[in-house]
Amino acid sequence: MSEIFVGIDLGGTNVKIGCFDSQLNLTCKTAAPTEADMGPETVVDRIGRTTEELLADNGLSAEAIGAIGIGAPGPAKLDEGVIIASPNMPSFKNVPLRKMVSDRFGKPTVLENDANAACWGEYVLGAGKDVEDMVFFTLGTGIGGGVIVKGKLVHGFADNAAELGHIIIYPDGRECGCGQRGCVEAYASADSTAKRAAEAVQAGAQSSLKEVLHEKGQITCRDVYEHLAAGDELAKEITEQTAKALALVCINVLHTTEPKRIVFAGGMIAAGDVLLERIKHYFSEQIWSLKKEAVEIAFATLGEDAGIIGAAALAKHAKDEGKFK
Amino acid sequence: MSEIFVGIDLGGTNVKIGCFDSQLNLTCKTAAPTEADMGPETVVDRIGRTTEELLADNGLSAEAIGAIGIGAPGPAKLDEGVIIASPNMPSFKNVPLRKMVSDRFGKPTVLENDANAACWGEYVLGAGKDVEDMVFFTLGTGIGGGVIVKGKLVHGFADNAAELGHIIIYPDGRECGCGQRGCVEAYASADSTAKRAAEAVQAGAQSSLKEVLHEKGQITCRDVYEHLAAGDELAKEITEQTAKALALVCINVLHTTEPKRIVFAGGMIAAGDVLLERIKHYFSEQIWSLKKEAVEIAFATLGEDAGIIGAAALAKHAKDEGKFK
Repeated sequence: MSEIFVGIDLGGTNVKIGCFDSQLNLTCKTAAPTEADMGPETVVDRIGRTTEELLADNGLSAEAIGAIGIGAPGPAKLDEGVIIASPNMPSFKNVPLRKMVSDRFGKPTVLENDANAACWGEYVLGAGKDVEDMVFFTLGTGIGGGVIVKGKLVHGFADNAAELGHIIIYPDGRECGCGQRGCVEAYASADSTAKRAAEAVQAGAQSSLKEVLHEKGQITCRDVYEHLAAGDELAKEITEQTAKALALVCINVLHTTEPKRIVFAGGMIAAGDVLLERIKHYFSEQIWSLKKEAVEIAFATLGEDAGIIGAAALAKHAKDEGKFK
Repeated sequence: MSEIFVGIDLGGTNVKIGCFDSQLNLTCKTAAPTEADMGPETVVDRIGRTTEELLADNGLSAEAIGAIGIGAPGPAKLDEGVIIASPNMPSFKNVPLRKMVSDRFGKPTVLENDANAACWGEYVLGAGKDVEDMVFFTLGTGIGGGVIVKGKLVHGFADNAAELGHIIIYPDGRECGCGQRGCVEAYASADSTAKRAAEAVQAGAQSSLKEVLHEKGQITCRDVYEHLAAGDELAKEITEQTAKALALVCINVLHTTEPKRIVFAGGMIAAGDVLLERIKHYFSEQIWSLKKEAVEIAFATLGEDAGIIGAAALAKHAKDEGKFK
């Protein structure tokens, strides 16, 4: 019976579960609503049942599980496996999630921050698989991050490292949900990009996005990129600002840990090469010459599976390194 | 015969040399002009003779040297022990400095970037000795940096990590010597602080620094802090801007590697508590609440010896870890 590694990507809305063989090939996967308001015990029990069903449907046994990895929103005490709190799961306060999952399955379990887990997935099997030093940004509602130095995730002294969305790029700039001003998240997340477009339209900018706002009552990031592709000038300007903001934060992380590759993930990379090219343009324009050529900026390759892949890979890594003994 | 560790702090003007016992207590130290224009061979030979004289004057034998550490300006290939180039030592191009020093003494030698060596000194014996995760800034002509993650210096993929002076805090801002715009170095190094004061005086600002500029033809950072202490309003404004710039870069490194302590060193910390207090003020004002309390901002404690202490400590560390076998 060959060993299985389970990767769990716990989000505020859905929980994704994937089963992997010992080579980290995806065997099967599923998703279920998180329903975090039912409380942590119910959530963990659903994860247990859903995983068992998934395994049974695929002719696998829970006995074969070698280890389980969970990527979850934080802040968390990773060494203790405890979720301190989570804005999207208010019922999760000081929840010993690692122990609960481990007890539910009777299997060794690791807990990691969700963005770090996705970062690790891309590092092991995706856009970063051939480098040792990588920085990862996920561009969604907010901006999450991960930092890998010489093959290890950087956790920081209190497990809050790599909050890269809150690097300040424009002091005294736009308000961020975190309470700071001028964070890159306030400019270049998918939500902030869409919001800046809506603000410009409301302020009277000429744009084909005006009709979108009028008809739907809002503008999404996808709208911005569709109208960019159709040649809208405002969409172009908004994209330029997003790209410049992302280039600035690339320069800043580069001067800190000097990654060989900087990887962007999340819904916004659906915008495609036009966005990547503009990030590279502003990076090249603003960075000093010494570092211009050597650093690579790339888009993630694993899509939505990065979280489950990374969680399973962390579980396998911990087992391989003897962390569970 | 107890073991000696030699720490060498190679600068564009002077080379400092210190001898330490196996507990890293400073036994004796000296300094000599670098005279880099004489070429690397001559520089290394002078380092050799100066060290031998220092040891002899203190009744010690070069035979007792356990290992040698060198902190030198870069960029460098640290694994290979090669200085690629150095703006202040134009004759140093692709110089295998580690091998040259090791051959001169017949002793194992490590090469480190000068700011990293000073960072390591503060980490091991100075302001960071009780933490695992630290970030270090040295405020002098420019701004150098060091990043320590879980007890290890971060080197980056090409040994150019921790160029923290070139983190961009004000996009499209002041020109920096590196070719970028808006680097923290262009605002908050000792030189930039003095330069901003001189520019303000030249632009007509009322200040007691006006006489300094008139009499000496320039304003130094020390002048700014002396006039600050005497109550000059412009000196106060310049100091506020320096403190805000440093607070911003603290926030940005905090969100990247999450150090427990951020340590400032270099000539400018002679300004004392007034500067430290203002950095902490702006940090506290701009950082999100989650991280406000937990991070410590402090001044270095080893003064000018940090470089030789760090270099010697790195030599001992490498020996202890079996790196020379």
